[in-house]
Amino acid sequence: MRATICRWAHFNAAHRLHNDNWSDEKNKAVFGKCNNPNYHGHNYELEVYLTGEIDPETGYLFDLGELKQIIVEEVEDRYDHKNLNLDCPEYKDINPSAENICIKIYELLRNRIDARYDIKVRLWETSRNSVIYPPES
Amino acid sequence: MRATICRWAHFNAAHRLHNDNWSDEKNKAVFGKCNNPNYHGHNYELEVYLTGEIDPETGYLFDLGELKQIIVEEVEDRYDHKNLNLDCPEYKDINPSAENICIKIYELLRNRIDARYDIKVRLWETSRNSVIYPPES
Amino acid sequence: MRATICRWAHFNAAHRLHNDNWSDEKNKAVFGKCNNPNYHGHNYELEVYLTGEIDPETGYLFDLGELKQIIVEEVEDRYDHKNLNLDCPEYKDINPSAENICIKIYELLRNRIDARYDIKVRLWETSRNSVIYPPES
Amino acid sequence: MRATICRWAHFNAAHRLHNDNWSDEKNKAVFGKCNNPNYHGHNYELEVYLTGEIDPETGYLFDLGELKQIIVEEVEDRYDHKNLNLDCPEYKDINPSAENICIKIYELLRNRIDARYDIKVRLWETSRNSVIYPPES
Amino acid sequence: MRATICRWAHFNAAHRLHNDNWSDEKNKAVFGKCNNPNYHGHNYELEVYLTGEIDPETGYLFDLGELKQIIVEEVEDRYDHKNLNLDCPEYKDINPSAENICIKIYELLRNRIDARYDIKVRLWETSRNSVIYPPES
Amino acid sequence: MRATICRWAHFNAAHRLHNDNWSDEKNKAVFGKCNNPNYHGHNYELEVYLTGEIDPETGYLFDLGELKQIIVEEVEDRYDHKNLNLDCPEYKDINPSAENICIKIYELLRNRIDARYDIKVRLWETSRNSVIYPPES
Repeated sequence: MRATICRWAHFNAAHRLHNDNWSDEKNKAVFGKCNNPNYHGHNYELEVYLTGEIDPETGYLFDLGELKQIIVEEVEDRYDHKNLNLDCPEYKDINPSAENICIKIYELLRNRIDARYDIKVRLWETSRNSVIYPPES
Repeated sequence: MRATICRWAHFNAAHRLHNDNWSDEKNKAVFGKCNNPNYHGHNYELEVYLTGEIDPETGYLFDLGELKQIIVEEVEDRYDHKNLNLDCPEYKDINPSAENICIKIYELLRNRIDARYDIKVRLWETSRNSVIYPPES
Repeated sequence: MRATICRWAHFNAAHRLHNDNWSDEKNKAVFGKCNNPNYHGHNYELEVYLTGEIDPETGYLFDLGELKQIIVEEVEDRYDHKNLNLDCPEYKDINPSAENICIKIYELLRNRIDARYDIKVRLWETSRNSVIYPPES
Repeated sequence: MRATICRWAHFNAAHRLHNDNWSDEKNKAVFGKCNNPNYHGHNYELEVYLTGEIDPETGYLFDLGELKQIIVEEVEDRYDHKNLNLDCPEYKDINPSAENICIKIYELLRNRIDARYDIKVRLWETSRNSVIYPPES
Repeated sequence: MRATICRWAHFNAAHRLHNDNWSDEKNKAVFGKCNNPNYHGHNYELEVYLTGEIDPETGYLFDLGELKQIIVEEVEDRYDHKNLNLDCPEYKDINPSAENICIKIYELLRNRIDARYDIKVRLWETSRNSVIYPPES
Repeated sequence: MRATICRWAHFNAAHRLHNDNWSDEKNKAVFGKCNNPNYHGHNYELEVYLTGEIDPETGYLFDLGELKQIIVEEVEDRYDHKNLNLDCPEYKDINPSAENICIKIYELLRNRIDARYDIKVRLWETSRNSVIYPPES
């Protein structure tokens, strides 16, 4: 029997959106308040979906304690209470937009979770904006 | 890189469910309290999903300020603090059910958003009932 | 032992804010979109607080089934799927503002619940606006 | 016109995770606190999705009153305020894990809802953990 | 400077409402589904409020890490994934109603937190029902 | 007639907790992850309560459009997408802890809102932690 499970996590981080190849004027025009040179921040909320077979002996698709631990190690330890631009080298050359963070988290989890499970990640930057990866279509 | 983003919006409106071709008795039997001739109302909550390519220069799939503005112009200005039956000609011949409102909002946004983006709309009539269009299967 | 309990309820209604003694211009200036002559509506959420002694035999402050029934009879049957201006005579001479609805609900419940219980009502018109009665100070 | 609707429901139940074929030590190692022999419990929240054609005469995909009644009869009457292990024979030989409960609810609803509607169920065991069936991929 | 802080916690437990001095009929009449002899359960959500002086050197009213640890030791370790009737001797002679659990949690925290802080506890049994202690009036 | 109204707002900001008079070791021991020199951030949610008389001509306690504008000018324009330590001089000599931000917002609003209204502010730093000012007791 195949199903999908979802687990929530969260982390608080600072970031700034900026393209080093652009003038200050263009950066401000495109990114607006998100370009503030002193950073701003968010409470990011994360949904991690795993699709796979349910183990008939346990009734579990994946051990939630193990999943929680993987998310702590790969996401929370890396991003919680961090400045994504300054503390996280993966955003040295790409913007820590919600889109890019979501995809990066997918890749981090994909490396840790067995390939027989499909993964989907949904990252909420605020309660009004979120990103889903892989795409819905 | 392709992903999906989601943006929330909301509007407050009055409506009534009624089929002009039916007797009052049949209308009351089918629509119950929703048939009240003096209307009732809801706080509608809206999720708009866009699927497309992420711009590598910005890390954005779509500019959220622009998306917000499109939703204001196409949905909020049209429906917020309105009576859907009386103020909105699109519901003259079809019922302003959550299903029909959801599809209409999809069409309004589809006309404004470039075809290289896929769109999905989820409309919450109450915190217990919602509609998704296009259908999930 | 004295404590406070809280029970949620909800109802969906249409309303319009208007002062018959004022010109149309003044009504529109003061009430804005809420003055739409064709009404708009809300999903009202209601919190009812009772403060009193806990019955040592049951561990209950008040039977929740009974409280639910009182709220159904006094609030939901009266306001759910109604037009507050047209269907509810109590708003013939006063505006069905969230403030006035909240106080009216307090009075309706006060008439039904024994005086040894203190009552507080919080009415949410939207998830961003609410009213509390009696006042906090 | 084809769309998807979603309706929420909830029930409160006790359960315990245990595999009769295993030693107490193994049960405790695998299921941890969820193996407590005296049971623990949850407020389960349920999302039921139906996909199908919208009736042009009503604007409804499915009558929500009828859907609510089906969920009451098939899910709430069966599980609300119950001990899933002791009161519900369907969990005699399989664990009442969120995964297994979700699939069982799908089957119960599938038997009651016409085959021209596709069904999806999402069961929340807590606000942090949920299961979706059929699987997303 | 004096203020109030609030911290959330949660635990999942089974319970049953029953008065040993009453007949089975009276128990069933008074407690209804909550009297199920095999127990049912809830995801309890807890709000702990502390009122006191803000330390001018830290800007903290109370160290949240310490408060979290006190709640873990006094509440979560005691009640999470437990059967309140069978595993917790404090409910041997009183019903584990939300009212009684709320007051007991207040007493447990009162014993651990310095008297210069005022404490208030709000316990949610479901998202629709909660208890506050001390009482609001 | 006197009642209390509440209005929500929100802003996203970066901050860091640090006491310049302390060693790095002591700062890290006391503030932990919140002491990260590169800052982290939050989605702050704000509840503003006003208590006063209801205007019998409007049914309003306070015009919500005006209240929204005051909150935009005094709070959102000042703190949204800002670094509280670097961009906001009021936190030069005191820590931008949730407690201190909450009290500062109270003072900012108190200066703008007529003294016949009592004010209360609740600031959520995360969905699990909040501060209320003035204190509850």
